[in-house]
Amino acid sequence: MIDCGESTQTQMRKSRISFSGLKHIFISHLHGDHCFGLPGLISTLGMLGRSGDLYIHAPSGIEEFLRPILTLFNKELPYKIQFNTIDPYSHSLILDDRSLEIYTIPLKHRVPCCGYLFVEKQSEPHLIKETLDFYQIPLRMRPGIKQGADFITEDGTVVPNKYLVRPANPPRRYAYCSDTAYSESIIPLIEGADLLYHEATFAETEAKRAKETFHSTARQAAEIARRAQVKKLVIGHYSARYENITPLLQEAREIFPETVSANEGMKLSI
Amino acid sequence: MIDCGESTQTQMRKSRISFSGLKHIFISHLHGDHCFGLPGLISTLGMLGRSGDLYIHAPSGIEEFLRPILTLFNKELPYKIQFNTIDPYSHSLILDDRSLEIYTIPLKHRVPCCGYLFVEKQSEPHLIKETLDFYQIPLRMRPGIKQGADFITEDGTVVPNKYLVRPANPPRRYAYCSDTAYSESIIPLIEGADLLYHEATFAETEAKRAKETFHSTARQAAEIARRAQVKKLVIGHYSARYENITPLLQEAREIFPETVSANEGMKLSI
Repeated sequence: MIDCGESTQTQMRKSRISFSGLKHIFISHLHGDHCFGLPGLISTLGMLGRSGDLYIHAPSGIEEFLRPILTLFNKELPYKIQFNTIDPYSHSLILDDRSLEIYTIPLKHRVPCCGYLFVEKQSEPHLIKETLDFYQIPLRMRPGIKQGADFITEDGTVVPNKYLVRPANPPRRYAYCSDTAYSESIIPLIEGADLLYHEATFAETEAKRAKETFHSTARQAAEIARRAQVKKLVIGHYSARYENITPLLQEAREIFPETVSANEGMKLSI
Repeated sequence: MIDCGESTQTQMRKSRISFSGLKHIFISHLHGDHCFGLPGLISTLGMLGRSGDLYIHAPSGIEEFLRPILTLFNKELPYKIQFNTIDPYSHSLILDDRSLEIYTIPLKHRVPCCGYLFVEKQSEPHLIKETLDFYQIPLRMRPGIKQGADFITEDGTVVPNKYLVRPANPPRRYAYCSDTAYSESIIPLIEGADLLYHEATFAETEAKRAKETFHSTARQAAEIARRAQVKKLVIGHYSARYENITPLLQEAREIFPETVSANEGMKLSI
């Protein structure tokens, strides 16, 4: 989970997202709209009988925020919370999982703030079952074939690796960048990402206000997407002044056509 | 406002309830579902530019909960929060307003917890404009008439007070009792109330579980309403196990027919 504003648990229920599948929460910065959902979510996970550790990655201050609440409200929480205080000013690997690497992306906001880059690891190629069955290739040889080995039959025929495996999908990359002023320094870090979430609090007509409040305009978000050559951009975090966000979307699409606008409960496939 | 669970500010927006009209918040007890909406609401009130003090009445612990959050998230809040730590074990007058008296109602729960009784003050009778105009009664005499004075015309005719005023509506009383185990000791405190909100977490089939968790059944809520001879009962705070709350409502109505079941966004007139 990335960020956890008030009502996150309600939205999870509405979207039928599993509470038990949650293991890591990445908080971009300590503003209420990005973390005031944590106390309720933590309590609910306890009431659901969770036992495995919950990891919360966030800039410093997160423990000062949550520790008193845990002491007052969750004396008997049946699971542990592991805090990982991250440095929002560096681009660092903060989690190296079986399938993912997760990096921080330094952003420019009024308080220490970072985005997160999720990089899928290259997975092994898929074995072509039909060919393996045809040559009756023993199970013990399969790991080697996945690593690139050819197969040699009893009569000495070489079956090249390319007939035995189908390459895995190329690893995907998702970059989340909110909240931030326009910052070109993130471009090399997110280059070529399959999906970029970039905040677009204002329209370009409010560029001055965006700069003052360390937010971005829709045009600026699209400019970052275009220069980083990402495959797709999703904008969000619109100011409450915009009842209709179509103008923001149009503004972004003029610069970067592959833009979509986030809305509540939206699901995007990468 | 009585209690402030997570998403309260969202519900206020949906129900078009004014943020600026809010001055006092009464918290029954320090469980998350009754106060985790405070951090977000406090921030939002700040962003809306509130300047007047906000009063939060609650059992002790409320400052330990909110102070660290105010320090971390709301360094520049444009208004003050006044904490009124109340004693949830006594039945006391905690607020004496121009139009209302507000009392605590000691409840029985796993943590210190109290309900609140809102007692309207008897308002002055309404002047009957037509009669006043007919006798050309001067403005300066109106306060006396409201207090019960007759009017004497220049020729000495006495116009009795009852022709000059219509009695005000009888003062209304609203009692809020959540969360609580069945507790007969609240009956004399809420006797004859116009509206009683009483929690009904469980059906009577779960009476054992209700007792263990210091909650009430719908039947118990109705029993309190019947014995206190209130005019109307509204039940709520249903356990998540009840997708359909009709059986709870039926169970209560068997004991106390004037029962309604609370649901999200419901408005009741007293």
